[in-house]
Amino acid sequence: MHVLIIGAAGRLGRGLTAKLFEDGEIVCTPITRLTLYDLIPPPVPEETPFPVEALAGDFASFGEPARLVNSHPDVIFQLAAALPAHAEAEFDAGYRLNLDGNRQLFEAIRATKHCPRLVFASSYVISPAADGEPAAPTGSYAVQKAIIELLIEDYSRRGFIDGVAPRLAAIFPQEGPRAGATTGYLSEIVRAAFDGSEAVVPVPEDLAHWVASSETTIAQLVHAASIATEGLAGRRAIAMPGLTTTVREIADALEKITGRDTADHIRFAPDDEVTEMVSSWPAAVDTGRAGALDFPADDSVEAILRAYGDDFSVSTKL
Amino acid sequence: MHVLIIGAAGRLGRGLTAKLFEDGEIVCTPITRLTLYDLIPPPVPEETPFPVEALAGDFASFGEPARLVNSHPDVIFQLAAALPAHAEAEFDAGYRLNLDGNRQLFEAIRATKHCPRLVFASSYVISPAADGEPAAPTGSYAVQKAIIELLIEDYSRRGFIDGVAPRLAAIFPQEGPRAGATTGYLSEIVRAAFDGSEAVVPVPEDLAHWVASSETTIAQLVHAASIATEGLAGRRAIAMPGLTTTVREIADALEKITGRDTADHIRFAPDDEVTEMVSSWPAAVDTGRAGALDFPADDSVEAILRAYGDDFSVSTKL
Repeated sequence: MHVLIIGAAGRLGRGLTAKLFEDGEIVCTPITRLTLYDLIPPPVPEETPFPVEALAGDFASFGEPARLVNSHPDVIFQLAAALPAHAEAEFDAGYRLNLDGNRQLFEAIRATKHCPRLVFASSYVISPAADGEPAAPTGSYAVQKAIIELLIEDYSRRGFIDGVAPRLAAIFPQEGPRAGATTGYLSEIVRAAFDGSEAVVPVPEDLAHWVASSETTIAQLVHAASIATEGLAGRRAIAMPGLTTTVREIADALEKITGRDTADHIRFAPDDEVTEMVSSWPAAVDTGRAGALDFPADDSVEAILRAYGDDFSVSTKL
Repeated sequence: MHVLIIGAAGRLGRGLTAKLFEDGEIVCTPITRLTLYDLIPPPVPEETPFPVEALAGDFASFGEPARLVNSHPDVIFQLAAALPAHAEAEFDAGYRLNLDGNRQLFEAIRATKHCPRLVFASSYVISPAADGEPAAPTGSYAVQKAIIELLIEDYSRRGFIDGVAPRLAAIFPQEGPRAGATTGYLSEIVRAAFDGSEAVVPVPEDLAHWVASSETTIAQLVHAASIATEGLAGRRAIAMPGLTTTVREIADALEKITGRDTADHIRFAPDDEVTEMVSSWPAAVDTGRAGALDFPADDSVEAILRAYGDDFSVSTKL
């Protein structure tokens, strides 16, 4: 089985790559080839369990998707995207990457006359809130994700692709610097609690967020590559399990784990724009379909933070 | 006020043109210029109440939308579309006209830095059914309309256009030959009752349809050009009032009006493909928002047919 990851140099892509190295297969079918693609060449370890090639390029530029799919990958993970703040600030860049790039990819796949499984990283921001309010995508990013979900439905119905669009929760905590992720402050709070740095929080402490750990998110992506799509009945976008949490809850859990007062490390600097954007996203999502399809889920925010703390302790030899 | 009608040579476009000639204004603002555009030059009467130009071209070809909007129309009616059966049979042609053409139009408008009212003829096929089932667009046509509605939301939020997307019911009865309209058989039944021809009906007599007269539909388009959009709260797609009807109800109403047995003129020739497509569309739609916004509505199928019969009698000197 040949697997292609578009957006392989990002956090999610690197984690997914490591997971595929570890598993060596997707639902009992051995991986025989892995292609990693991103703007910069994704890192490849010296020893890999199967042949790996790392390619760099601008996914949305003309002819690039064709170059990627002409080798007929069986499973394609499409993780590349302009993030909400970027898509909002740069209208043209957002549409180019989040709409036109994906449309080109689907057309390139169609032209190969193969029909690979395509796992498209969609987002909880376009899920209807669990309280039944209809989804009204707000912001260019949300509109672009919603459009791609529609295209996946139609291209899949026509037999051009076999698409699944897991609507991922916000990843928490994220490693490394905030780097454009709107809710990156949640991760800053966690790092601050462990390394003593300062976290700047632009939203009220009781604002609700919908999050999942990166381990669970990666497991959800792999599961999306393996589920039978016949039973999805034309609803290939699936809201992924997540947890509702707040800055307050995260801080409380961190105090419990570290035994230190996190208040010293959190500075509230209200930002109306960020607060408004995050408030427009659902804080809780109905994930009944994902549950019925056996998608994995996190247990609790505290469990996520304990696992993070253990990793942190190991990595810093505390 | 300069008005542009794209798709002006079609049934709806010709009716809308006649209505604008009659009214001479849109909400008390006099029309000073009208541009009619279609694949073939739209007909223009010798005497018109304001200057009218008729242009012909392929709306979705490169540079054409820019040619149309560079004169800064204040109101644009966008009625041009590949119809459901065409969009389903010709995948590329459907996307080219129904997605790419409109996207180009929005980009061309954005480039002018004017922000005209854009009335986009959307369709009831993507309305959630009144029984609360979520809308799951089926068929390429529905997917394309849903995508354009999303783009209208985002381009309007950004201030590039001031869009309104009335989701029109199926027009009943339509004048002239069936010409690709999936539910054209409903109109054939009506013509058959008046002129003695035969109507071929591909669906069961009790299958429910969502319809509106062309007069009401045209009045809805004009109303969409005149409503205040500030209060729409990011929901610029509005389900238009219509009526739920069946072949049986239409036949019964026609017998009452003409006094003749319509059964002689109707031949049932079941077509699973057409039946499936029509069955996938909502048979009743929640039009509460349109009602609150004072959009016009038909009274009854019988009233529509009586008006049609009167016109028919006049036009054929019966």
